[in-house]
Amino acid sequence: MAPLTPDFDEEIDRFGTHSSKWDMMQPLYGVPAEDGLAMWVADMDFRPPACVQAAVQRMADHGLYGYYGDDTGYRDAIRWWMQERHGWAVERDWIFSTHGLVNGTALCVDAFTRPGDAVVLMTPVYHAFARVIRASGREVHECRLALKDNRYTMDFEAWDAQMTGAETMLVLCSPHNPGGRVWTREELQGVADFAKRHDLILVSDEIHHDLVMPGQNHTAMALVDDSIADRLVMMSATTKTFNLAGTHIGNVIIADPNLRARFAARMAGLGLSPNSFGLFMAEAAYSPEGAAWVDALVAYLDGNRRLFDDGVNAIPGLASMPLQATYLSWVDFSGTGMERAEFTHRVEQGARIAVNHGPTFGSGGEDFLRFNIATPRARVAEAVKRLQEAFGDLQ
Amino acid sequence: MAPLTPDFDEEIDRFGTHSSKWDMMQPLYGVPAEDGLAMWVADMDFRPPACVQAAVQRMADHGLYGYYGDDTGYRDAIRWWMQERHGWAVERDWIFSTHGLVNGTALCVDAFTRPGDAVVLMTPVYHAFARVIRASGREVHECRLALKDNRYTMDFEAWDAQMTGAETMLVLCSPHNPGGRVWTREELQGVADFAKRHDLILVSDEIHHDLVMPGQNHTAMALVDDSIADRLVMMSATTKTFNLAGTHIGNVIIADPNLRARFAARMAGLGLSPNSFGLFMAEAAYSPEGAAWVDALVAYLDGNRRLFDDGVNAIPGLASMPLQATYLSWVDFSGTGMERAEFTHRVEQGARIAVNHGPTFGSGGEDFLRFNIATPRARVAEAVKRLQEAFGDLQ
Ligand SMILES: Cc1ncc(COP(=O)(O)O)c(C=O)c1O
Ligand SMILES: Cc1ncc(COP(=O)(O)O)c(C=O)c1O
Repeated sequence: MAPLTPDFDEEIDRFGTHSSKWDMMQPLYGVPAEDGLAMWVADMDFRPPACVQAAVQRMADHGLYGYYGDDTGYRDAIRWWMQERHGWAVERDWIFSTHGLVNGTALCVDAFTRPGDAVVLMTPVYHAFARVIRASGREVHECRLALKDNRYTMDFEAWDAQMTGAETMLVLCSPHNPGGRVWTREELQGVADFAKRHDLILVSDEIHHDLVMPGQNHTAMALVDDSIADRLVMMSATTKTFNLAGTHIGNVIIADPNLRARFAARMAGLGLSPNSFGLFMAEAAYSPEGAAWVDALVAYLDGNRRLFDDGVNAIPGLASMPLQATYLSWVDFSGTGMERAEFTHRVEQGARIAVNHGPTFGSGGEDFLRFNIATPRARVAEAVKRLQEAFGDLQ
Repeated sequence: MAPLTPDFDEEIDRFGTHSSKWDMMQPLYGVPAEDGLAMWVADMDFRPPACVQAAVQRMADHGLYGYYGDDTGYRDAIRWWMQERHGWAVERDWIFSTHGLVNGTALCVDAFTRPGDAVVLMTPVYHAFARVIRASGREVHECRLALKDNRYTMDFEAWDAQMTGAETMLVLCSPHNPGGRVWTREELQGVADFAKRHDLILVSDEIHHDLVMPGQNHTAMALVDDSIADRLVMMSATTKTFNLAGTHIGNVIIADPNLRARFAARMAGLGLSPNSFGLFMAEAAYSPEGAAWVDALVAYLDGNRRLFDDGVNAIPGLASMPLQATYLSWVDFSGTGMERAEFTHRVEQGARIAVNHGPTFGSGGEDFLRFNIATPRARVAEAVKRLQEAFGDLQ
């Protein structure tokens, strides 16, 4: 059980626990289980807050796991969190509980677009977006983020010129994975204008909205521009914030009654309703105790970020993008002059670190690898040391 | 925590635990929480086997709930169960994990039929089938079960004459809810022939296949007739057998590669993958210890069934259908000569028992109420006593 004061330094052995990140590292990447470092899949090596652990223990003690009834408390916990942490007043009936946010994205695609439609992604971006869009017979329309001074920016002028008219939806990742950008209010206004100009449904995936580094401010898309309320879908979840990915639950929040009716119809037609572990744990997490834990977590991640960035950027040819949010560090290897196979080999076989490969995130990712730094600091230090060795000939 | 020897007599207070069955009894049916008996929603008032409780406790102790990796052990547990308990050899890649079987049914409708198609149901039948069929823009084509000697039988001759050509799928409930029939091999062969004759995809929902009374034998549809393998989808779950409905997980098993590819495409397009609690608990349940628990459970349910049937059938005008399987007793009130409103009122307000109303199960359900007897025996005895009082004037 988690102690009341979180100990993010504790190294918990996740091997043999069906952890995708640790157990699949060797089969998928050939990184040895003995001393490999798993820095790929986006979950954390930390236990969730004690209030969540207590909720699981209460369920275990009661020992009955039947059909879950009244979810008012659950909805109100979400509303409290949105208001308290993000300044957004959400009504109870705006909230849908999907089976996680990959499912949430897919349901948006299913409910609001037709086969053959194109969905706009600002690439490089979280890989599962393109996967579900394609798997449901829609096209991915890539708008490439501009890379300026080791930082992504939006290039609406270029994007306007590339639109074909087949686009009916835009999936925004805010904050951005990978790249760690917290989009400014001006940039988000640009997105709103872009969505209006091209008549796009705007799905704002804000799953990383709680993992925002000190000094940065995330703005909920719903607070940017009232005039897009009739085309806006917002998504968030306890799973990323509190490290509960296995509970597969997520919030899809829709203020507009018309969009809501269409989304509700698909949920009903697909017979979807949430599992009770996800419900109990979310209600426990979205609480003052959960909030205090998140504050401590972010401070810890900020320390990891500094350690990682300092170490990696000291290696000639490597540049990690400034991490304004998320725990996913996006490292540019183009400065090494190496082929992708070469720098990847050095990271996986030399440094024995499993990472996500840039090209899976779409165009623009070719020169990058993504490192998950939500792990005890000693492991981040070890990763930095190994990377410095693996690329030591560049010093 | 559940003791090693299950104590089905223990009366566990489920109020205030988000139990739909208990907490929603008063708001939905007006049956008072103080002394009402919840005999509606199909979950049990028993804890699952100790092996399942131990799995939950192990998860709580580890305290990390990230993305779930390799599911081979889970699939193999399902395969072991199917082979051991149902004599059916299932391959690993035939198994899909849906978000429960309402979702499983809905995904079949989505994957294998088109809007406007008709889906055949043998009514009265589990109400959620019609709900998801209609919610996804398909028609329900009702084939009414024949009622003979207080027992449902299939009437293929009548049904053949009623087909319109718009039917593309049949959802079979085997064993049957409500009505508790274990279909004979001959009846199932009749279903297979019917499906072939009318070129229907056959979805065999066998979620109640483990809850079969002593002396009865359930036959898996897959073992009935090889020639329907190219149109057969089988569904089963730990949730009904082990009382884990809150985990929202279910098995959709498809041997045919073509159907499998179509189903897999929809799963991928909708971004669906199972939650880790459901996976861990299912793997623990589908085990020799789980099997021993099910045997003890069925013996207990058989005792409840006898008590309930004896008591109810002693009331003039009431007839409970012989329960060959499931814990859902289907009671015919037509012999009372009362209007539906009257006998329902006597059960809900007089006897203070919350039950499922017959008409929600489709045509043929008008004169019936469904009683869930998966509760400690003392409560079944109390229900019987109250029913005898509520209908005392008929003695
Ligand atoms: C932007 C984004 N959306 C969604 C997800 C995954 O959501 P879920 O696990 O709820 O399906 C991730 C996981 O990394 C993500 O980064
Ligand atoms: C025949 C049948 N199928 C499916 C279900 C429900 O399945 P799930 O809870 O997995 O959605 C039930 C529940 O009573 C049922 O009786």
